[in-house]
Amino acid sequence: MVNKIKFYNVKDVRLTDGFFKRYADIIAKKTLFEQWDILNDKGDAKGHAVINFEIAAGQKKGEYQGLVFQDSDLYKWLEAAGNVLSVRQDSKLAKLVDYAVKLIQKTQADDGYINTYFSLVHPDKRFVDFECSHELYCAGHFFEAAVSVFEATNDKRILDVAQKFADYLVKTFGTDESQIDAACGHQEAELALVCLAELTGEQKYRDLARYFLETRGKKPNYFIKESEIRKGATVWTKWLESAGRLNEGNLKYFQAHDLPVNQQAATGHAVRMVYQITGMAAVANSESDPMYIAAKRLFDNIIERQMYITGAIGQTNFGEAFSVDYDLPLVSAYAETCASIGLVMAAKQLMRVKPNAAYAAIVERVIYNGVLPGINLECDKYFYVNPQECNPIRKDAPYLDYIKYERQPWHGCACCPPNLSRFLTSVQEYIYMRSEDALYVNLLISSELDGQDKLKMKCKIAKNAAIKITADKLNGAMLKVRIPEYIEKLKAMVNDTPTGVDISDGYASFDLKDGDDLVIKGFVKPIFVRADEKLNYCAGRVAVTFGPYVMCAEECDNGANLHNLVIKKTAKPIVVDNKNNIPAINVAGYRQSYRKSTLYFKEDNPTKEDTKITFVPYYYWNNRGAGEMSVWIRKD
Amino acid sequence: MVNKIKFYNVKDVRLTDGFFKRYADIIAKKTLFEQWDILNDKGDAKGHAVINFEIAAGQKKGEYQGLVFQDSDLYKWLEAAGNVLSVRQDSKLAKLVDYAVKLIQKTQADDGYINTYFSLVHPDKRFVDFECSHELYCAGHFFEAAVSVFEATNDKRILDVAQKFADYLVKTFGTDESQIDAACGHQEAELALVCLAELTGEQKYRDLARYFLETRGKKPNYFIKESEIRKGATVWTKWLESAGRLNEGNLKYFQAHDLPVNQQAATGHAVRMVYQITGMAAVANSESDPMYIAAKRLFDNIIERQMYITGAIGQTNFGEAFSVDYDLPLVSAYAETCASIGLVMAAKQLMRVKPNAAYAAIVERVIYNGVLPGINLECDKYFYVNPQECNPIRKDAPYLDYIKYERQPWHGCACCPPNLSRFLTSVQEYIYMRSEDALYVNLLISSELDGQDKLKMKCKIAKNAAIKITADKLNGAMLKVRIPEYIEKLKAMVNDTPTGVDISDGYASFDLKDGDDLVIKGFVKPIFVRADEKLNYCAGRVAVTFGPYVMCAEECDNGANLHNLVIKKTAKPIVVDNKNNIPAINVAGYRQSYRKSTLYFKEDNPTKEDTKITFVPYYYWNNRGAGEMSVWIRKD
Repeated sequence: MVNKIKFYNVKDVRLTDGFFKRYADIIAKKTLFEQWDILNDKGDAKGHAVINFEIAAGQKKGEYQGLVFQDSDLYKWLEAAGNVLSVRQDSKLAKLVDYAVKLIQKTQADDGYINTYFSLVHPDKRFVDFECSHELYCAGHFFEAAVSVFEATNDKRILDVAQKFADYLVKTFGTDESQIDAACGHQEAELALVCLAELTGEQKYRDLARYFLETRGKKPNYFIKESEIRKGATVWTKWLESAGRLNEGNLKYFQAHDLPVNQQAATGHAVRMVYQITGMAAVANSESDPMYIAAKRLFDNIIERQMYITGAIGQTNFGEAFSVDYDLPLVSAYAETCASIGLVMAAKQLMRVKPNAAYAAIVERVIYNGVLPGINLECDKYFYVNPQECNPIRKDAPYLDYIKYERQPWHGCACCPPNLSRFLTSVQEYIYMRSEDALYVNLLISSELDGQDKLKMKCKIAKNAAIKITADKLNGAMLKVRIPEYIEKLKAMVNDTPTGVDISDGYASFDLKDGDDLVIKGFVKPIFVRADEKLNYCAGRVAVTFGPYVMCAEECDNGANLHNLVIKKTAKPIVVDNKNNIPAINVAGYRQSYRKSTLYFKEDNPTKEDTKITFVPYYYWNNRGAGEMSVWIRKD
Repeated sequence: MVNKIKFYNVKDVRLTDGFFKRYADIIAKKTLFEQWDILNDKGDAKGHAVINFEIAAGQKKGEYQGLVFQDSDLYKWLEAAGNVLSVRQDSKLAKLVDYAVKLIQKTQADDGYINTYFSLVHPDKRFVDFECSHELYCAGHFFEAAVSVFEATNDKRILDVAQKFADYLVKTFGTDESQIDAACGHQEAELALVCLAELTGEQKYRDLARYFLETRGKKPNYFIKESEIRKGATVWTKWLESAGRLNEGNLKYFQAHDLPVNQQAATGHAVRMVYQITGMAAVANSESDPMYIAAKRLFDNIIERQMYITGAIGQTNFGEAFSVDYDLPLVSAYAETCASIGLVMAAKQLMRVKPNAAYAAIVERVIYNGVLPGINLECDKYFYVNPQECNPIRKDAPYLDYIKYERQPWHGCACCPPNLSRFLTSVQEYIYMRSEDALYVNLLISSELDGQDKLKMKCKIAKNAAIKITADKLNGAMLKVRIPEYIEKLKAMVNDTPTGVDISDGYASFDLKDGDDLVIKGFVKPIFVRADEKLNYCAGRVAVTFGPYVMCAEECDNGANLHNLVIKKTAKPIVVDNKNNIPAINVAGYRQSYRKSTLYFKEDNPTKEDTKITFVPYYYWNNRGAGEMSVWIRKD
């Protein structure tokens, strides 16, 4: 097993931050129970996940319901529940977990295989449709759930089930003649197998993960070969012959057009792409491993050329996919919540090979502005798609029917809600990482680290920023604190004595003795942000950021037709409110308007009406009703 | 037969205008022959249209090729050829027409039915799939071709074939129990049957047209009923049962969600929509006919809320369809060339019920800027889709694969090329219309009218505009000349004597004696145009128009990243060139640029580099190579 940089995990880090703790608490106390009910088809929203297991376990009668990867909804829920049980006692939740674990156990075939869709609907079609079946995708989510639940409960049952399944996969997949030489159309098992390897110490799972990434995109392409054998039939087309046989042109959708190590730019389905990068970085042995080099190249392509300012990714509904470099449409942005979660996961795995403060900054950007918008403050409604500019004027436009103007209680394809649960109950994992000689603080989120290293951190990121770190036990490690670009006029003190701040590669290094108090102070101002000059949709417009927050303008603060608001040339953004930790920023501007009765007309002087333009955090939008929203606002 | 306002037709009007005459001449002398070769599969582009007839006629062996409505390509070509033969002798073209007529005749079934797809591929499936079959759509194009060819040649053969087919339809369709009560998924036969009725004096064809428009959208919906019978199979799904059974939700695509007379706003497939409006206006008996009222309502919805400034329509690729009011995306605009042609046809039929200078202005806008961009100056390459802003940066974006950055020699779905041929060989039909007591000049295109009324008109629409009309024989009619909004400081003289200009409802009326010379002079200046404040994509931007031309900026004149060009607040557009009748306009502006290495960055002062911004007519774009193009440019 490779000695990678270690992130301190859920158990080792206790959130003391009001902001993220609030989410984690609500999800633990309320959301997970509501989602359980939905997964059990109680109430209006039907999750269709548990029933499939109950039928497959022989406990109920009925027909399989939902999408082919419906199992994964339960697995993600289970992973979230594991996260919660790692940090708090909850016998009610533990009971549900126990029920789910037993249920899954009962659906396991003698050889180890688990998948309710294929067990119930097509027992004869196991592992013949890697294009669409999601069998290994579901397996991956199960392994992640098993790791999480085992770590929380120390109950070996789920881990045994997982290992039996994983061992079956190890036996089944590979390049021997007796094996199937293929990988899943939806990457996910790769990362999960590494997690399982790291927990169990079994190198074979890690080898299988690497194998999946090495066989993907090989020529001749097995996805095409299989499509020919199936005459284009897939699990989506109900195994009827379809006109849509796979060809070279559509392999990009699931990144099977080339070997992952050869892939140059992010393409295809966004979640698949970032899950692949996550897996590539997870199996990489070092900085010089071609898997790491390619993973980094793909990740850099995303953040340098294909990412929204909010950290959201996947520009188009067409395949829930990446587009091309510098094409970042705002109104039609897909920007799936799950893709943001995947981007954070990818950054983490890349940082495990080599620390990178810029990637940690991306993690911060994405968590606050790419992931959080997916859920409302009460944690019971979700956005699957996150437009960067929206106007309910278009709510009946069929070509934009994937855009919702209000968060929904559940989705037909419900990948995002349980993904948000598992993510927001494990966000503390992204704060601290440990190399041989240094403890890194990647995120300025108040928390207590209580692992091999021990420290307490209190962060206030407001106009006056203050970070106080008490080094309880650093075992001789340097403390490296990521200093975000938005903190200005930095001052540091150790035990009340001013000390120089040496920032190198984005981290300020401090050599603390156990018991030392480090205080870092500075100022955070809201700023205007411009986009690369190639981004046509942002031309003439700015976004406003304040600390970790990307802001947006909403109709409820600013009236309709946000595109007619213009920020004055010399205006400065001013923080006017920070109630409930929700900053509000005002900027001097004007509303340009042309009131005419025809659609197009000879220019005359527009009415310019002075107005304050109010910005709130993007993640916060639609928490006060539906209406227009825009991240980018015109500026003189 | 209703006594409608009459448009003077192809035969009665001789183009003397260099601009449109150039197109008509090239199409007559070159394009039609090249298209014939393509329709005969000679050369690289394969039209697959004539071969199907040759097989159906028993002259060749082989399998049907192309789309289900491939026949219509030949019919549109034939209509164009008829237009040409109406105004010039061409024995070579006449021979081709004769060959095509004989061929069609041979494919006619004993009962009158003609359709090579159904005759060759599915003789058992006649009239069971109105959703997709396009049988009546193809019939309509045949009828229009027959009218055109008969009017050109006076050869009754094709008319006899058409009437035999039409008589069969009259017998087949209706509400009697023995009849089929249905209309075609693609409107087109409606207008065509009215043309046939007007040529032959047969009211029954007109009645059938009206019937089709009255049965469309009736409840219970026969499209849904049939879809159920076919178990969702259609001609597109090769008659395999598909999961895609029609439901209420997708009836809007072909405007069968409600009775046409009840439809409130343009929706669904844009060409279908405007062909429907054309048919509705064509069958309407008077201004108070509900068909006219609804046709006008739908047309007004388009021009007031869903039309691009170029007169293009159909905002989205998703169903080649309308979107919703005030949603007019520029980059992803579909704006099909055929839809523009249909919009002009609709305006004409509406004006036949009631003169309307505003509609004539739309006709002008659409011909110059919605139709003409579909074809290059040499008339051998075509745009199907007409984006209002484009950048080859996106050429590999799969979700925009319908956008071409250069005109193409032909299209897989080749509706546009022969549609352009038939339109540009009949554009003179839109110039003059006659009511009982007035002769209307709708378009200022140099031409000689030589019908019941006779006049000569010479128009120069440049900085100094001059229109000279010699009234040779007006039969006591008032002359009503549409005065476009863009002509300023109007002066008129009759026989060199100044006369007052009384403009009412957009037309200036003159009471001329035969032999009088009317001269109208004025000035045309390029202007900046703003869009309704609800059009977000145009916010902060202007378009430039000059006379009938909507202008655009191209990369070859202005460099890349057109979105970073800004017109100065006080700049005035100046005509700097008019070589080959292609005006070029310069405006003072600057290029705003931010050169940074990251995708998003803290605003600093942009570089502002003064520059002239050059505009050329939108129809002219991509005649000098591929590159960026934008109709709307930022303005301070």
